[in-house]
Amino acid sequence: MYPTDTGLPFDDIRHLVSTMPGPSEGAREAALARQGQLVKPPGALGRLEEIAVHMAAWQGNSLPTVNRPMVAVFAATHGIADRGVSPYPGAVTKQMMATFTAGKAAVNQICATFDAGLRVFDLALDYPTPDITGEAALDEKACAATMAFGMEAIAGGSDLLCLGEMGIGNTTIAAALCHGLYGGTAEDWVGAGTGSTGDVLARKVEAVRAAVAFHKDHLSDPLEVLRRLGGRELAAMAGAIIAARHEKVPVVLDGYVVTAAAAVLHAMDPAALDHCLAGHVSAEKAHRVLLERLGLRPILDLDMRLGEGSGAALAVGVVKAAVACHRGMATFAEAGVSDS
Amino acid sequence: MYPTDTGLPFDDIRHLVSTMPGPSEGAREAALARQGQLVKPPGALGRLEEIAVHMAAWQGNSLPTVNRPMVAVFAATHGIADRGVSPYPGAVTKQMMATFTAGKAAVNQICATFDAGLRVFDLALDYPTPDITGEAALDEKACAATMAFGMEAIAGGSDLLCLGEMGIGNTTIAAALCHGLYGGTAEDWVGAGTGSTGDVLARKVEAVRAAVAFHKDHLSDPLEVLRRLGGRELAAMAGAIIAARHEKVPVVLDGYVVTAAAAVLHAMDPAALDHCLAGHVSAEKAHRVLLERLGLRPILDLDMRLGEGSGAALAVGVVKAAVACHRGMATFAEAGVSDS
Repeated sequence: MYPTDTGLPFDDIRHLVSTMPGPSEGAREAALARQGQLVKPPGALGRLEEIAVHMAAWQGNSLPTVNRPMVAVFAATHGIADRGVSPYPGAVTKQMMATFTAGKAAVNQICATFDAGLRVFDLALDYPTPDITGEAALDEKACAATMAFGMEAIAGGSDLLCLGEMGIGNTTIAAALCHGLYGGTAEDWVGAGTGSTGDVLARKVEAVRAAVAFHKDHLSDPLEVLRRLGGRELAAMAGAIIAARHEKVPVVLDGYVVTAAAAVLHAMDPAALDHCLAGHVSAEKAHRVLLERLGLRPILDLDMRLGEGSGAALAVGVVKAAVACHRGMATFAEAGVSDS
Repeated sequence: MYPTDTGLPFDDIRHLVSTMPGPSEGAREAALARQGQLVKPPGALGRLEEIAVHMAAWQGNSLPTVNRPMVAVFAATHGIADRGVSPYPGAVTKQMMATFTAGKAAVNQICATFDAGLRVFDLALDYPTPDITGEAALDEKACAATMAFGMEAIAGGSDLLCLGEMGIGNTTIAAALCHGLYGGTAEDWVGAGTGSTGDVLARKVEAVRAAVAFHKDHLSDPLEVLRRLGGRELAAMAGAIIAARHEKVPVVLDGYVVTAAAAVLHAMDPAALDHCLAGHVSAEKAHRVLLERLGLRPILDLDMRLGEGSGAALAVGVVKAAVACHRGMATFAEAGVSDS
């Protein structure tokens, strides 16, 4: 289904974006009608009702399911990590891959809590993308191929896809990408990431400023922004979001890096993220700004800033509960309860 | 352990409040130390870290558990429901009891999602407490006995207690109780509840005003406020909070009515709720104000306003994930990951 090796790869990506299906209006209306009949005051379940209707509309099923939630974590390495933009060395990315495999990272525990599957994708960790302050992260073909690779995230029949990432240096990349897409100043888009302060934070701001300045004449096309200022995990996550839409799988976004990848698609088409939920708003300050720009209201707000898909995985609990209420509650008529 | 039929019942309650144990500082410090060693940047799990440490301190166990979470729902009937303060008739309280038993209410679905137990307590539903605009809801002995009954909520060895309630008219009762405890105006404490608007809302405000005016000379003792302006489910929940503290069971509060019951204990002793987490902030506007007064920061903010313990039960998912991360993650040393 998804082309990976063509003469005009970005045109293929554009085609996949432009042909993304809309929601099922029939399922949405049937789900809304059901919510109005369930044994509770209208609207009393608040955002749980919205989430259930969202799931219905995008799965195309008035009784949606969360039987096979999947957390897909994409990991990549970045040349910019060598500029001292993070308190952690770049080697941590590979070390954390081993921790995921051993089942000992935070996201493993959260997935286990909510019976969610976890798939971790290694994106050529031994070959960091070049330092974006003086070079593009990827060429067009590699970027499109990585997006196509990301489309594999929804293989296996998941009914809810959570996206996460691992990559020392990638909040710097996300900041550069947002600065490239939206302008403003580098400071507007840079935050502490894993804990950058003082000189490390100053280097991070400077790296973002320098990267956008270097590529400034090539930022009118969102896919160019992605390939120049992004990284492999961001490209793969953008691909996963596109594929999920085609396969009627609603998506839960995680934190700043995942949302920055999603922003590329939003810049291509303002409706491109309509099947996505924002799992949480992270403590990374620019994440809240970015979510507002994208019109996404986070489900959770718990000062998390870990990445790994941890915030998205945590939101699976809420989505599961929303769908369970939608499916399992009696109607007023079934329960014999007096309506108002 | 808990006296139910003595000559001076409120004195017994006061004794139980004044002898509530504090947290285990040893478990708290050990849990904090462990959080600092887990394979993540310090603080990156945000409130999940705080919640894990809270659970450790109040269970007295540096590796706390959420193996047997229990949602206890207390249901009662209120004479004030006959004043037309709710769009639903008082009969709905009993009808909803049957829905809980049938497993068809919202809270049943949320409990099933998170493997939480559910116990529903019927508090003399055929005998509504008197209309508080002209009479006390309970006499001292009945109030203390109902608090003692509520202490049963933690029977059976739960390691996390969520409190919920059902009772048409009880957001009016909660508003009267808060107005009695904190002053202000009736409007400050009255919200839509199950959906009161227009004349219904006006009658609700007037009922709260009239009730507090009638009892105004007897509101200096929080237990007097509870017995005069409260109801059986509020008394029982206050008792449950006390008992949970003695048994080292952390508590998750639900919405406005549960928090109003908790406020009585806070008025007796500002440390009385230190073992409690606020599961969510509801759409009932005074709930946010009340939580701020009590120094409680809600875990979830999802515009819910159903009661039944639904918001507290939903927070169980977050507490479970917090404890799972605390227990299951590797330390930097175990994982062989480079610390910063």
